[in-house]
Amino acid sequence: MPYFDAASTAPLHPLARQALLSALDEGWADPARLYRDARRARMLLDAARETVAAELGARPDEVVFTASGTQANQLAVLGALAGNHRKGRRFVHSAVEHSSVLHAAEQHEAAGGSAHGVPVDALGRVDPERFAAELLPGTALAALQSANHEVGTVQPVAEVAERCAAAGVPLLVDAAQSAGRLPPPEGWSLLTASAHKWGGPAGVGVLAVRKGVRYRSPLPADDRESGRVPGFVNVPGAIAAAVSLRAVRQQAARLNPVQHARIDRLRAELPALVPDLAVLGDPLRRLPHLLTFSCLYVDGEALLGELDRAGFAVSSGSSCTSSTLTPSHVLAAMGALTEGNVRVSLPDDCADADLERFLEVLPGAVAAVRAQLEPAAPAAPAADRGPLVLDTLGRRCPIPVIELAKHFAEVPVGGLVAVLSDDEAARLDIPAWCEMRGQRYQGEQPSERYGSDGGTAYLVRRLS
Amino acid sequence: MPYFDAASTAPLHPLARQALLSALDEGWADPARLYRDARRARMLLDAARETVAAELGARPDEVVFTASGTQANQLAVLGALAGNHRKGRRFVHSAVEHSSVLHAAEQHEAAGGSAHGVPVDALGRVDPERFAAELLPGTALAALQSANHEVGTVQPVAEVAERCAAAGVPLLVDAAQSAGRLPPPEGWSLLTASAHKWGGPAGVGVLAVRKGVRYRSPLPADDRESGRVPGFVNVPGAIAAAVSLRAVRQQAARLNPVQHARIDRLRAELPALVPDLAVLGDPLRRLPHLLTFSCLYVDGEALLGELDRAGFAVSSGSSCTSSTLTPSHVLAAMGALTEGNVRVSLPDDCADADLERFLEVLPGAVAAVRAQLEPAAPAAPAADRGPLVLDTLGRRCPIPVIELAKHFAEVPVGGLVAVLSDDEAARLDIPAWCEMRGQRYQGEQPSERYGSDGGTAYLVRRLS
Repeated sequence: MPYFDAASTAPLHPLARQALLSALDEGWADPARLYRDARRARMLLDAARETVAAELGARPDEVVFTASGTQANQLAVLGALAGNHRKGRRFVHSAVEHSSVLHAAEQHEAAGGSAHGVPVDALGRVDPERFAAELLPGTALAALQSANHEVGTVQPVAEVAERCAAAGVPLLVDAAQSAGRLPPPEGWSLLTASAHKWGGPAGVGVLAVRKGVRYRSPLPADDRESGRVPGFVNVPGAIAAAVSLRAVRQQAARLNPVQHARIDRLRAELPALVPDLAVLGDPLRRLPHLLTFSCLYVDGEALLGELDRAGFAVSSGSSCTSSTLTPSHVLAAMGALTEGNVRVSLPDDCADADLERFLEVLPGAVAAVRAQLEPAAPAAPAADRGPLVLDTLGRRCPIPVIELAKHFAEVPVGGLVAVLSDDEAARLDIPAWCEMRGQRYQGEQPSERYGSDGGTAYLVRRLS
Repeated sequence: MPYFDAASTAPLHPLARQALLSALDEGWADPARLYRDARRARMLLDAARETVAAELGARPDEVVFTASGTQANQLAVLGALAGNHRKGRRFVHSAVEHSSVLHAAEQHEAAGGSAHGVPVDALGRVDPERFAAELLPGTALAALQSANHEVGTVQPVAEVAERCAAAGVPLLVDAAQSAGRLPPPEGWSLLTASAHKWGGPAGVGVLAVRKGVRYRSPLPADDRESGRVPGFVNVPGAIAAAVSLRAVRQQAARLNPVQHARIDRLRAELPALVPDLAVLGDPLRRLPHLLTFSCLYVDGEALLGELDRAGFAVSSGSSCTSSTLTPSHVLAAMGALTEGNVRVSLPDDCADADLERFLEVLPGAVAAVRAQLEPAAPAAPAADRGPLVLDTLGRRCPIPVIELAKHFAEVPVGGLVAVLSDDEAARLDIPAWCEMRGQRYQGEQPSERYGSDGGTAYLVRRLS
């Protein structure tokens, strides 16, 4: 089965697998003990820490191993905010950070702190000046990912780091998506990453805290991992993670141009192959192996299912919220279409034949899903001179957009359509449809004005 | 190298190793995704959860996987206290819980709650009535381990659980040392365990919360593991843990009597082989594979080193605090001798020949360490009719006890010795020496009364 979801988790690197097997024999003992087996485990753990530190641009004594990238982000956010509470309780982050950063921000807010999301542009990128403007007095921590996990856009970390340094604000860089693929970011005060994203095993994350950066663990005391990560250390996991990180860093110079070319090809061909498909994210400043697109009039989950039946493992852009029904906060922040969203992230050993077949299969898969979504004809009362009202209350996206497209030609140029919907995604997808179609989105009103209970009326003016 | 430290971590069970290898191939994908590889990972994770739940006497939907037993304990304590805060903020636990429970209790106290340690007897066991007496109004949570990690004493969990139920107080049972070896405890509201203690891999712990028990995660939100453990789930680790748990549970009926007999033999022979050695913990109600003893006039770390050179991997009783210099809180609570402390915990595949050799080697190892510890002759001023004063200020244990023993014959029967010491362990070890020697410990006074700055004077009356 062609696996195009490396951004969720990469298959275990062959060298990591070898390292894990031998570490199960050599590094199984408790590194905190005094006997020979324990000292050997300790030495292997030290070596793993040195390797990871070197590959991430850190000192070994700045690096601790966590249980996951999510844990690393939570500890980084809460530990740095606690350590720097004398500066204030303001936390500034990009609007498109990983959910683990945003959830930690919510906890900080629940405890009386404040969190401020810096908007991104339509490509998902923060503007360093806009970021800097949020670094007001009282800011204890800022956070900016190295590259976005849903659309692959690389963030201007160095520029933001300069501004954070000037403002005296420590900067957390979540490098989960770039570690191993791109050179380590510069200027960070705290750095986090996740081993299973670079071909290491599950259960290993990394938290690095620069010497001199204030940090106070939010967890109960423990004497392992510099007091930052309580619990028995997963030494075999750390070793396998280190071996894999070194391997992928070494192959990156050769592999990245190949992956870039593959994604460039997809970016160029997909919109021609599939009508009403928008490729998202920055076309140039991006991760080498990742591409995200959205398709109008398509239910994303149904499309994933169709592709799965055709043998392709892909995911929907909103990786960490796909079990909920809320639209992706990343796509929302970009003002991008959230419906029919698919993220393709290529594994290191991607076969070009698989990519070829993906391009063959996708148009049919989208068409099949669109065919299933033929909605019941809604009431379309033509009130005198009033807008055309399309009542899609109680129907989930992409139905509201499908209705809009189907009936749009019924209003004259200059006329107005009001789509009534109680699905949150409509708030994002109707403006995105207008953008894609060159029509004018006129904003929203309460549904009550159109004789309905609940929901919102989204107004679209026909321009052509 | 004979490995006698299974209570720190057990070597990976052969079946767990096999399961881990195949799970790396079959269960590596993200179980939250929708495609085939992901669904397979999800099924394997569900199966692992069902197995662990069945072996621990829980329902699958009550069980989540954590990164370690320590994390499980921290989450259990803080999550149950938060979930039951309307009952009050009182946390009752035995004085000999694992450090992860005590550290969580400290955090609870730092946040304004209260924590109350229930004393244990000289064998390390809590009295159910005494425990029940602490379940005052306002108690939100109680905690009692299934068996002690340092001395192996099995706690009266069922009796305490009954009293907790009567008082309406949820009970956390830390089953880390017994899971797999003994039948699962009964009456728990929350149960924790650690896979690497039963031959599973590092990086996997278990937290079970009974249906209906109030729980509020102390960590930021996340939709994995029922919202209780944030981060990507280590599916291969969970599978290997489950396979190992089932295997050790199945072998326990056969293995436990064998291990019990081995430990019984050590308990019987050690005091005869090594002078001034005390075996600690309950001789009957105990873990099958674990024994702890202390030796007078011995530095524990030096003894571990001596045994390591002889090829034996053992640890000091205070497993989780051995990197600090404070004496074990478990031994302190028992009023046991803390000096020269060694914990022997046999692996499942313990060879009797290794045990034989341990009995051969130990007397010489203890003698070698005692020979190194010949102290400089202290000033022993014989004030008129006053006590014999032994000034060991600035010297670490076991020097104070060695001095006491060396000069004890210099006072007549009925006479008094004052040992001046600023090592905290002396407070435990001098009374323990008196107990072992049949002499009377008379309490402590400030050193100043004997003309010294700082430290404490420990008074011993010679009875024979």
